Amino acid sequence: MEALKEEQTPFEMGVVVPKRIVDQIGEGCYDHCVKVVVDEFQKSGLIVDRVPGLNDEFLKLTAPVEILGKAAAELQLKKRTQIGVDLQFEWDEADAFIKQSDGSLFSWCERFRCYNHIIYGIVNEGNSAIVLKSDCRDVRWEPGERLLWKFEKEGIVKEVFPIHDEIKRKQLLKCWALNWWDLTNQPLDDIYAYYGVKIAIYFAFLGMYTKWLFFPAALGILVQLVDFGSLQLLVLPFFFVCIISWAVFFLQFWKRKNSTLLARWQICYSVGAESAYKYMDTEWSSFHSSVGSIKFEADKSEKEKFQREEWFGHMLRFRNDAIIILSIICLQLPFELAYAHFYESIGSDTMKFGLTAVYLFAIQYFTQIGGKVSVKLIKDEKNENSEYRANSLIYKVFGLYFMQSYIGLLYHAILHRNFMTLRQVIIQRLIISEVLENLMENSLPYMKYSYRKYRAVRNKRKREKGMAARKSYFNSRVEKEYFKPIYSASIGEELEDGLFDEFLELALQFGMIMMFACAFPPAFAFAALNNVTEIRADALKILAMYRRPVPRVAATIGAWLNIFQFLIVVSICTNCILLVCLYDREGNWNISPGLAAILFMEHVLLLIKFCFSRIVPEEPDWVKANRMKNATQAQNMCSKQLLRNISGRRGTLVTGTRTAD
Amino acid sequence: MEALKEEQTPFEMGVVVPKRIVDQIGEGCYDHCVKVVVDEFQKSGLIVDRVPGLNDEFLKLTAPVEILGKAAAELQLKKRTQIGVDLQFEWDEADAFIKQSDGSLFSWCERFRCYNHIIYGIVNEGNSAIVLKSDCRDVRWEPGERLLWKFEKEGIVKEVFPIHDEIKRKQLLKCWALNWWDLTNQPLDDIYAYYGVKIAIYFAFLGMYTKWLFFPAALGILVQLVDFGSLQLLVLPFFFVCIISWAVFFLQFWKRKNSTLLARWQICYSVGAESAYKYMDTEWSSFHSSVGSIKFEADKSEKEKFQREEWFGHMLRFRNDAIIILSIICLQLPFELAYAHFYESIGSDTMKFGLTAVYLFAIQYFTQIGGKVSVKLIKDEKNENSEYRANSLIYKVFGLYFMQSYIGLLYHAILHRNFMTLRQVIIQRLIISEVLENLMENSLPYMKYSYRKYRAVRNKRKREKGMAARKSYFNSRVEKEYFKPIYSASIGEELEDGLFDEFLELALQFGMIMMFACAFPPAFAFAALNNVTEIRADALKILAMYRRPVPRVAATIGAWLNIFQFLIVVSICTNCILLVCLYDREGNWNISPGLAAILFMEHVLLLIKFCFSRIVPEEPDWVKANRMKNATQAQNMCSKQLLRNISGRRGTLVTGTRTAD
Repeated sequence: MEALKEEQTPFEMGVVVPKRIVDQIGEGCYDHCVKVVVDEFQKSGLIVDRVPGLNDEFLKLTAPVEILGKAAAELQLKKRTQIGVDLQFEWDEADAFIKQSDGSLFSWCERFRCYNHIIYGIVNEGNSAIVLKSDCRDVRWEPGERLLWKFEKEGIVKEVFPIHDEIKRKQLLKCWALNWWDLTNQPLDDIYAYYGVKIAIYFAFLGMYTKWLFFPAALGILVQLVDFGSLQLLVLPFFFVCIISWAVFFLQFWKRKNSTLLARWQICYSVGAESAYKYMDTEWSSFHSSVGSIKFEADKSEKEKFQREEWFGHMLRFRNDAIIILSIICLQLPFELAYAHFYESIGSDTMKFGLTAVYLFAIQYFTQIGGKVSVKLIKDEKNENSEYRANSLIYKVFGLYFMQSYIGLLYHAILHRNFMTLRQVIIQRLIISEVLENLMENSLPYMKYSYRKYRAVRNKRKREKGMAARKSYFNSRVEKEYFKPIYSASIGEELEDGLFDEFLELALQFGMIMMFACAFPPAFAFAALNNVTEIRADALKILAMYRRPVPRVAATIGAWLNIFQFLIVVSICTNCILLVCLYDREGNWNISPGLAAILFMEHVLLLIKFCFSRIVPEEPDWVKANRMKNATQAQNMCSKQLLRNISGRRGTLVTGTRTAD
Repeated sequence: MEALKEEQTPFEMGVVVPKRIVDQIGEGCYDHCVKVVVDEFQKSGLIVDRVPGLNDEFLKLTAPVEILGKAAAELQLKKRTQIGVDLQFEWDEADAFIKQSDGSLFSWCERFRCYNHIIYGIVNEGNSAIVLKSDCRDVRWEPGERLLWKFEKEGIVKEVFPIHDEIKRKQLLKCWALNWWDLTNQPLDDIYAYYGVKIAIYFAFLGMYTKWLFFPAALGILVQLVDFGSLQLLVLPFFFVCIISWAVFFLQFWKRKNSTLLARWQICYSVGAESAYKYMDTEWSSFHSSVGSIKFEADKSEKEKFQREEWFGHMLRFRNDAIIILSIICLQLPFELAYAHFYESIGSDTMKFGLTAVYLFAIQYFTQIGGKVSVKLIKDEKNENSEYRANSLIYKVFGLYFMQSYIGLLYHAILHRNFMTLRQVIIQRLIISEVLENLMENSLPYMKYSYRKYRAVRNKRKREKGMAARKSYFNSRVEKEYFKPIYSASIGEELEDGLFDEFLELALQFGMIMMFACAFPPAFAFAALNNVTEIRADALKILAMYRRPVPRVAATIGAWLNIFQFLIVVSICTNCILLVCLYDREGNWNISPGLAAILFMEHVLLLIKFCFSRIVPEEPDWVKANRMKNATQAQNMCSKQLLRNISGRRGTLVTGTRTAD
């Protein structure tokens, strides 16, 4: 019966409250509070389903579309209308807004925001505090206080989390995660509808990257296997040029694909360019809150203050970046080189193994510390919104991983010209470590889940020792989900979700195959093979192993695009060095130290040219803020008028090419 | 009396018609037509002042602000309102729009568009053709035909051109062109008000560039004059690094300054980024006209057609660029090298002089041909608007000049390590040629003006031989202006105005001082000195020597910014080579050919990385068109409603932070 009910209205949010403990006195301690919560939920229009679990009770929530619509109107959610512009949502004019491809009015991301608004929006509207009984002590719910915040602080509400929609999840499992024969094709629209834009964009990127990989994979195998006779000397440089062009075009076409997807999903966001539309509402609200209402005209001193703040923010970010870069160069680089050196000089395999074990242990520790420091530094920075903050973290943490992954390899290649070790390490990292990682990624959450389940069952057993009804071990589905781990990054949980790890893996793989392309051309084939499995493994993981992730608004791959582009430039330089090492086995090619110094300076300057220009933003902050303000103001002012026109009640001002009535 | 009248309402447009020739029959042939034109002008609200000249008659035009306002409304001009957004102009709501800094409602660029709209908007509104007598033959003015087009075709209206406002011109002369002691400071707001945004942006750039030049100028002199003892070896590399950083920061801060200026002048246009706002109306109108009304939703085939067209356009542009680049490399490069080689190998000075004369003659011819070919190629391209077309031309022509200016110098420096010749040529180009060029620039238009005046007087004398009233040689001011040449580029008159030459001069100078910075550090000082005089000379030229230029809409320096950035990258490489040549006088430093080949490949690949990504646009055309359509539609729909709110008649929907009532 429960299954049938779920089919009608999928529950999308879960709230965990401690279970009513029927203790010796015979009365439930938490019962009163839970009842208040349920009542308040129902009062605000939510449909609540109480599911008992082993130790906790689960409230599954859903809402009719009217309730969501009203919440959206209160949130002043901007939404795409039939004429193609984003306007503030109004429930009365709901017809004017475009429906999702599955027929629902709101996307999952919007629904999630509305649910949160409703759930956390419950306040005590009376004039006096309400006294609630909880765990045999009283909780005073003050007037104007938010119920859920209060209860979360008191531990009465353990968690609020989005829950899976069983039917859609099973559909996706069948047509996506277990559909191995599609190779790189994925039902992107369904993924978008179910998981929101950020995750859909990740899988679109992974799919396109894998599909594009087939070309260099074939070329790499060809280069490796075929003997070109007298042209053999030219094969590697030719391969190198092909690979670099391939990478440049791939990233450029990815930007196009990203734009296309966003246009298909009716999301207003221009890729790459710092457009006026990008994050308009988010940015403006943060400006608004931090600066208040500045009169931009004539107020010179205000403008100067604004400018001072802007520069201060830049200085802060610059300082943080400098700290990270210096600590990577001064602390991590020597460590990595020391490891590579010892690995090279030690003869016995056992010693090598031991060294590697110590190294891996140390590296784990290092990365943890680095991540923590980065997170702490970023909290100082005044980043405009959470996506900027996330990008800032990505850059910093990727610096760590970059050193860790490639410096040792470069050491083997350049200083010792030991291409055997290099190839070994590449193969090892590409195959063994990625297979292991995939296994780990999929088994670790399952182990966590099993452990939590086991502990819960044990707790229940302990508590119910000697009682009746021992056969209620059966977990409800929502409880199973509660036991699953959150989809979060292994580093800096509060800033990034699990996509951080996925993108990191991709970026490290891309760097590995690109930077050492000339040393080991078949690496592309391994990477392609690996990514084909990665698509399905990641899909499986996100569908079955984790809780449903919280949807995010970001609509591009953000900082990772810049990292991929940086890797292309680095790989141009490293491959040149590799070619020199490969062709000059005897060390006959020489270069005078003066010339080397000048070449080094040239490369540093080119780096400066292409990086330093990012330090100074093209547009002063106050100009940008001014522009935002104007756009927002206009939208707010004409929003209602426009809506009425679109939904066709008053058709007097409607002009030209309307797409629908 | 006439001077007094002019003070009240400055005449801003001039129309040239042939003078009434009182011939033997005693009747004016053109008289009828001129009378019709004047009548029609007066009918459409313009104030006309007829000024007789030597051979022609001049109609000076001006219009009250109401007439301009109505024309602006017909043109659907977008204009900044008090709340900061751009809306379609409506005369009834004129209060809602921001006034210019000089108190007038329209900027010069807007006024010019309105004048043109009024002048060329005169059509025969009757049902039957009107027969006009002209030059003893009849001209049929058909119904619906534009009067001015007809008359221009028939030669009855010789020219329509904007004329100077004497009072403002004299003010500018005093406070700008002749105000030498201000060095780099210029009254930019006044320049903007008088000449429009493009010319003001040029002078702002020139001023900022000159101001920034003082730093490397001082550094360059220091490096040249002071002996640093044991550190002497490190001085040039240090200078080199400073110069490159300086250039990078200069361009970045220029972008900021550009944004700031546009914000001050209330122009909506984001610098650098391909923003949605950029050229919105222009772009959209061209999309609209070329593609018609495409239904973007669901129509897959239409989308594909759109995409095919986009790629075809890219292919065409790519082909054209390839043609230009190949012809530069295959034709111009050998020629330049041959000249440099002969110059180096010939001993006698007379021969050298002769060779240079031949070379200069040939180069003139070459550049002419190159420019013509470029213009022809560009006409094939489907560039979205005239500014894109202008940029495309700039890139192509700059390629020619780049080879012409620098290849010879590099030849002297690298192959012959002949730094004396190099320095000689740099000094010669920086001082002598720029002084000569400035003189030429200022004297050539004056000579043209004098010649035209002389011819007119001679014609008149010839005609009036034996007649009375010989003392009417006095030219009216408008006639003097008519004799002045048009402010146009020396190459491709129809695509670019005189700013092309100015920017070209700046870019070539920038390239010269940057690319050979290490060979001759004091070059910066010469450039700074030269630019200080350049500011005033250009101001004088534009104020006194030429007709008032037609205002253009472009609000950035466009393609030149990219060229400056390209020059920085090139100068990194050339200075490295120069340093090698400077430090390695004896040729002891060597590099094996294999290594050299790989280094060469690396540089080519880096070039590919940073240039090829421009081939593929980030956003498909149809996505962009869709976005444009949406924005335009929304603006059109709510424009009237908003206006009413701003001008305060109906204050119901007005929210938040309004800046004025």
